[in-house]
Amino acid sequence: MRIVDIRVTTHPIASPIRNAYIDFSAMTCSLVAVVTDVIRDGRPVVGYGFNSNGRYSATGILKERILPRLTAADPASLIDDAAGNLDPFAIWDVMMANEKPGGHGERSVAVGVVDMAVWDAVAKIEEKPLATVLAERYGAGTPDEKVFVYAAGGYYYPGKDVSALQDELRSYRDRGYRVCKMKIGGAPLDEDIERIEAAIEVVGGGENLAVDVNGRFDLKTAIAYAEAIEPYGLFWYEEIGDPLDYGLQAAMAGIYPHPMATGENLFSMQDARNLIRYGGMRPDRDWLQFDCALSYGLVEYMRTMAMLREHGWSPRRCIPHGGHQLSLHIAAGLGLGGNESYPDVFRPFGGFGDDQTVADSMVDLSTLPGIGFEAKSDLIPLMHDLAR
Amino acid sequence: MRIVDIRVTTHPIASPIRNAYIDFSAMTCSLVAVVTDVIRDGRPVVGYGFNSNGRYSATGILKERILPRLTAADPASLIDDAAGNLDPFAIWDVMMANEKPGGHGERSVAVGVVDMAVWDAVAKIEEKPLATVLAERYGAGTPDEKVFVYAAGGYYYPGKDVSALQDELRSYRDRGYRVCKMKIGGAPLDEDIERIEAAIEVVGGGENLAVDVNGRFDLKTAIAYAEAIEPYGLFWYEEIGDPLDYGLQAAMAGIYPHPMATGENLFSMQDARNLIRYGGMRPDRDWLQFDCALSYGLVEYMRTMAMLREHGWSPRRCIPHGGHQLSLHIAAGLGLGGNESYPDVFRPFGGFGDDQTVADSMVDLSTLPGIGFEAKSDLIPLMHDLAR
Repeated sequence: MRIVDIRVTTHPIASPIRNAYIDFSAMTCSLVAVVTDVIRDGRPVVGYGFNSNGRYSATGILKERILPRLTAADPASLIDDAAGNLDPFAIWDVMMANEKPGGHGERSVAVGVVDMAVWDAVAKIEEKPLATVLAERYGAGTPDEKVFVYAAGGYYYPGKDVSALQDELRSYRDRGYRVCKMKIGGAPLDEDIERIEAAIEVVGGGENLAVDVNGRFDLKTAIAYAEAIEPYGLFWYEEIGDPLDYGLQAAMAGIYPHPMATGENLFSMQDARNLIRYGGMRPDRDWLQFDCALSYGLVEYMRTMAMLREHGWSPRRCIPHGGHQLSLHIAAGLGLGGNESYPDVFRPFGGFGDDQTVADSMVDLSTLPGIGFEAKSDLIPLMHDLAR
Repeated sequence: MRIVDIRVTTHPIASPIRNAYIDFSAMTCSLVAVVTDVIRDGRPVVGYGFNSNGRYSATGILKERILPRLTAADPASLIDDAAGNLDPFAIWDVMMANEKPGGHGERSVAVGVVDMAVWDAVAKIEEKPLATVLAERYGAGTPDEKVFVYAAGGYYYPGKDVSALQDELRSYRDRGYRVCKMKIGGAPLDEDIERIEAAIEVVGGGENLAVDVNGRFDLKTAIAYAEAIEPYGLFWYEEIGDPLDYGLQAAMAGIYPHPMATGENLFSMQDARNLIRYGGMRPDRDWLQFDCALSYGLVEYMRTMAMLREHGWSPRRCIPHGGHQLSLHIAAGLGLGGNESYPDVFRPFGGFGDDQTVADSMVDLSTLPGIGFEAKSDLIPLMHDLAR
């Protein structure tokens, strides 16, 4: 068997939203199709991958730097002969050949896009959902039947008032999400507290509400917010300061007793390790949000998981950023604590299959081979267009 | 005044060389021209910028993500009205609008390319060498007359033997470089020791030889090399382990008594701060190699310098990576310890002006307005082609 083609294109992910730092209206998404010569159900197996929201313009790095290495490689070197399947680890090594260490930014996104497509193809060739493949190869043998998901939203929109925020969160609750997340730090503290209290009214208690600063606060502001929100006992207080300011994160661990979460902007095992070494994160209550689709893919994520085990962390403390189906399969297959979900934004790339249902913030899993994009009616036509 | 156009293109930097990690033969360089409506010597002032070696394919991020923000901005918002000149800090803020914090990789290169062009234009509009502008605005008033430079080379080439290495280093010595640098870690220890001893014969003592691992070693190998090279008292032992493994760097500080250097793959103030906080670097002897052209430009480098001062580090401990003229002006204008130089590689982007001479590892400065690309006969035609 072999890879016969790798195609790449760019799509918009238009969203009229912003968080404390950015608006998403100009963002794009790179989409990759890895075409194999393996036939299943009478057609060649094609794996698909894309990047999570947050970083974009990976297509140039893909076309000029990463994909030419795969094209130039001996096709046999990308294959796991014994399994008659692609070898994601060998493919990863080829993609990263000639790359300098350190500086983990957009390059990590480009590699992550291809890695997603490779794992989709691997599971399709095995004719199993990816979660099952992962559980059998690297996990507990069988995947979790359901995965915890929370609804990420609560963005600042121009003209959005407290009642609009409540309507939004109520709609997530109506769609089966117990835990919801909202943005803070884009408004003054007193206004954010008003928003938080309004949100708590709708979600049924502070323990069902997470708040996300998107890395905006200095230590003084972080402490002022911590003191103000402590009485609510929130689900978590997320990405409080600059994601690389491990000193700030460690200081907050001495100040704020309830759960904190961070990691979506740490794009390598080495960066994640520095958070664990220096960030004072507490393995009994805090949450780690590394997103493989922004961070060199599942191959690197497995290195991160090994590092976490060495440092005494359970994979159940991981709830990845990104709201995509790859992380959902990883969560079920490798026993993570859950996954993010964006019920209303970042379409068509975010979100799960049409047939997957959420109840009490638990989602069931796709039974299709691969990652299950074929059951996502808003996304699969774009993928088929690319592979045609 | 205003910016009337920003142009971008991509050029090869073909080099048949490799270090312990990578070969450079497929690398490219992004080149930017910032065209203003200011007339000097009868022609519009154009600033030029490019990225250092090591990372590439920044053109996509420039075209799709960074430059559209400058094009969309109110031209007046990019200007320092009082000075009648471009405002590099305001331009930086526009380039980084809507960017998430953390994950400092290729994005930092794209911004660095434009920042270089902006500073070139700023100094041309002031009709002074950039070093003078920097010394007057932010430094000691007048720039250093000469800057320490070392010759970076000693790469592994296919078929290159010890005598070829000696010939190469001898040629650097003949061109005025007292201190030379060679790669190690791409061969077994005993072979590298043979190379090091051969190099020392040519450069006149271990104190004139720096060795560079390019981040390849684990702690055990790092210690084995440290023990083997300690008797030579080398100029420095560079980037020993993964650039983000501050724990390894800190461990080496307790083991290796002579100077160490690192930082070329830390692409933001926050990453640099983590090295200073956690890496055990010694302000009395170690060297910091952050390269502004890979790291969001001089605007971010000034933040890094402010952070260093807060942590008790002198700017004289900084010898930037990259061998480009921007860092040479920064070194002279802001009182750094020196600059890298690649006498033979990364042409035409690396290297200094045709009229600049090196003696006893000190280089004199360009007297042209701006960064002085106009005196670099192998480079300026490419720049003029882009601005035409």
